[in-house]
Amino acid sequence: MKKNCIVAQSGGPTVAINASLAGVIEGVIESSIFDKIYGSIHGIQGVLKNNFLDLTDSSKDFITKLSHSPAMYLGSCRFKLPDIDNGAETYEAIFKTFADMNVGAFFYIGGNDSMDTVDKLSKYAKSIGSDILIAGIPKTIDNDLVVTDHTPGFGSAAKYIATSMREMAYDTYIYDIQSVLIVEIMGRDAGWLTAASALARTEFSEAPHLIYLPETSFDQKQFIEDIKALLPVKKNVIVAVSEGIHDKDGNYISATSTVADKFGHAQLSGTGKYLENLVSRELGVKVRSVEINVLQRSAAHLSSKTDLEEGFSLGKMAVKFIEEGHSEFMTIINRTSNQPYEYTISHSPVLDIANKAKSVPREWINAAGNDVTQDMLTYLKPLVEGEIALDYENGIPSYPSISHLTS
Amino acid sequence: MKKNCIVAQSGGPTVAINASLAGVIEGVIESSIFDKIYGSIHGIQGVLKNNFLDLTDSSKDFITKLSHSPAMYLGSCRFKLPDIDNGAETYEAIFKTFADMNVGAFFYIGGNDSMDTVDKLSKYAKSIGSDILIAGIPKTIDNDLVVTDHTPGFGSAAKYIATSMREMAYDTYIYDIQSVLIVEIMGRDAGWLTAASALARTEFSEAPHLIYLPETSFDQKQFIEDIKALLPVKKNVIVAVSEGIHDKDGNYISATSTVADKFGHAQLSGTGKYLENLVSRELGVKVRSVEINVLQRSAAHLSSKTDLEEGFSLGKMAVKFIEEGHSEFMTIINRTSNQPYEYTISHSPVLDIANKAKSVPREWINAAGNDVTQDMLTYLKPLVEGEIALDYENGIPSYPSISHLTS
Repeated sequence: MKKNCIVAQSGGPTVAINASLAGVIEGVIESSIFDKIYGSIHGIQGVLKNNFLDLTDSSKDFITKLSHSPAMYLGSCRFKLPDIDNGAETYEAIFKTFADMNVGAFFYIGGNDSMDTVDKLSKYAKSIGSDILIAGIPKTIDNDLVVTDHTPGFGSAAKYIATSMREMAYDTYIYDIQSVLIVEIMGRDAGWLTAASALARTEFSEAPHLIYLPETSFDQKQFIEDIKALLPVKKNVIVAVSEGIHDKDGNYISATSTVADKFGHAQLSGTGKYLENLVSRELGVKVRSVEINVLQRSAAHLSSKTDLEEGFSLGKMAVKFIEEGHSEFMTIINRTSNQPYEYTISHSPVLDIANKAKSVPREWINAAGNDVTQDMLTYLKPLVEGEIALDYENGIPSYPSISHLTS
Repeated sequence: MKKNCIVAQSGGPTVAINASLAGVIEGVIESSIFDKIYGSIHGIQGVLKNNFLDLTDSSKDFITKLSHSPAMYLGSCRFKLPDIDNGAETYEAIFKTFADMNVGAFFYIGGNDSMDTVDKLSKYAKSIGSDILIAGIPKTIDNDLVVTDHTPGFGSAAKYIATSMREMAYDTYIYDIQSVLIVEIMGRDAGWLTAASALARTEFSEAPHLIYLPETSFDQKQFIEDIKALLPVKKNVIVAVSEGIHDKDGNYISATSTVADKFGHAQLSGTGKYLENLVSRELGVKVRSVEINVLQRSAAHLSSKTDLEEGFSLGKMAVKFIEEGHSEFMTIINRTSNQPYEYTISHSPVLDIANKAKSVPREWINAAGNDVTQDMLTYLKPLVEGEIALDYENGIPSYPSISHLTS
């Protein structure tokens, strides 16, 4: 009798995570070793609560539409598995459901924290001699997973940020008065997304003129000096700033709220607003701040084709690697060439990836700590390439029904 | 000898104002009565400062690219012309430049305040017996100009808002926890843009569940009751709120800054943030606020084709009406049918339009003042229809060079 498998999504949304789900579904449908594929609703919690969608009969049309859709079709969770030593009953419950459902493989699409789940489930399976294979598939707009060249979701978020930055620059340049625009971009600990704003530049516009990442320490006095130095030569100074910038002692700049989430990460907001007030007070110039907010992770209408294709392939290849008998891995992207952009997909032990984070290398940030280098641009450029032909209905993008998530 | 003409843009940007500029340029190039067309940089101030771009040799390709571009190609101003009685020297300077440049017509593309400029210039021209013809062409994302069925820029902003609202709803639904999302939308005195968020609804998602416009008075207690009533039946409550909501005495809800601009309009921000704090304090539920901000007026990547085509036609038809000898008018859209959507373009005295504002009719808002009616949806739907094939370069939309506005 053929085995079944389960797929789930976890962590924060990206516009590529459904492409990976679509890839897993297509891979399983085409596979010879699996019978049914179930989607677990709300990540690993769906397994604990017996909350599944049968995805086995997904049509080609549905799979395509799913590939080009925002957020997470199966819902998400922010649930941290207990240590195996103290939480045996949780693992027993999960593996009992796996056994009851004749599950041979579990696919988990997520970021650092989700790879922690993949790692723990893999270790538990090994400890009980289970033959269930466990695969991780990466996604995060933050691009902070190690080993893989980059992560699905990042390219689309980068494209949205660069496009929005360019459009906001056009918006800013129209008045004949000096002004400062501060754009706050997501990325608590890693500056990849903020760096991507540099793709907005054109031969007639250097915006963003200043870029501050969390990989260097942020000095408020120097920031004011940086703007002061530009104002005599630039009518409008446009600044990209990561939500996670902090001073040399590690204190976030204007964390209006530092409530920690379940993984111990501080929840930030208000960095742009704080800097807006600082510039207004110190320089008396017209200043506005914009927080791009959740749209940078959910704007499926402006996805990168490259990003969605890679997300799909990482999902589909995970099925192939499972078919070959691999487990405890995450699928990864290996870039083999920049011009033309080429890559291969392989897999790497999840143990080497879980709970680690990839920062922007210091040498991809300029010496002054207020811009990125050409190497960064070379790295970023291929990831935002290509556009998706979306379905529009009555002028608004049409995405798959998620009636199983709404109430 | 043929006359020349001048075109300028004024007020806040929209993604359709360059389409109207493109329409004027094409109209003048095809016209038999004009020689040169000059673009005045920074609105009427370009006339006062002798700052012009010669647009006469614009290519077909440039005109098309200009039609699909954000912000304002010629730059803007927020310059209020003095009353004719006290400011004769300003008018004399303007009409001297007109005479020096052999100008026969002046085209001004803008909103309410810009129509004030058109009206004053028309009156001054008449008072000195000048034969210079003056035309207004409407634009404003706020859709608050009277006489015309709607204004260019509104349909694209509505499309962006509805799309973003839908994508943020997908983003919100993924977690299995109760939450409230508050989305703050532009529109100081008119709720048209906030109303457009209703186009985000699908058969499986009623988001936004609550909509508050500035046309009714906002009661904070009732707002909390509205959310409280929904929370037992909706996992996530999504709210669209205009930046201009106010209590029954006219006090803005959480105006963190009420500095008036030159036209005496209060500058608002922080309405969503205020309501976020209110909901958190009163209901203790997870809550987030998002301010869509300047992207709703500058996101040319998500323009409505209907909107841009109308903007172009209103510009081009203004040239035709001038050729026929009309003056002191604004071009307007007359809707003749909803299904199929059909309209005609005509012109109307600017005197009847300047300094007036069109609010949402009370009967297009439900009795409780927390939603819009089917009549509103019928009105809105055609305006967001159709998509534009944009030029992308290296994965980012490519727009015309505005090197004359950057420094």
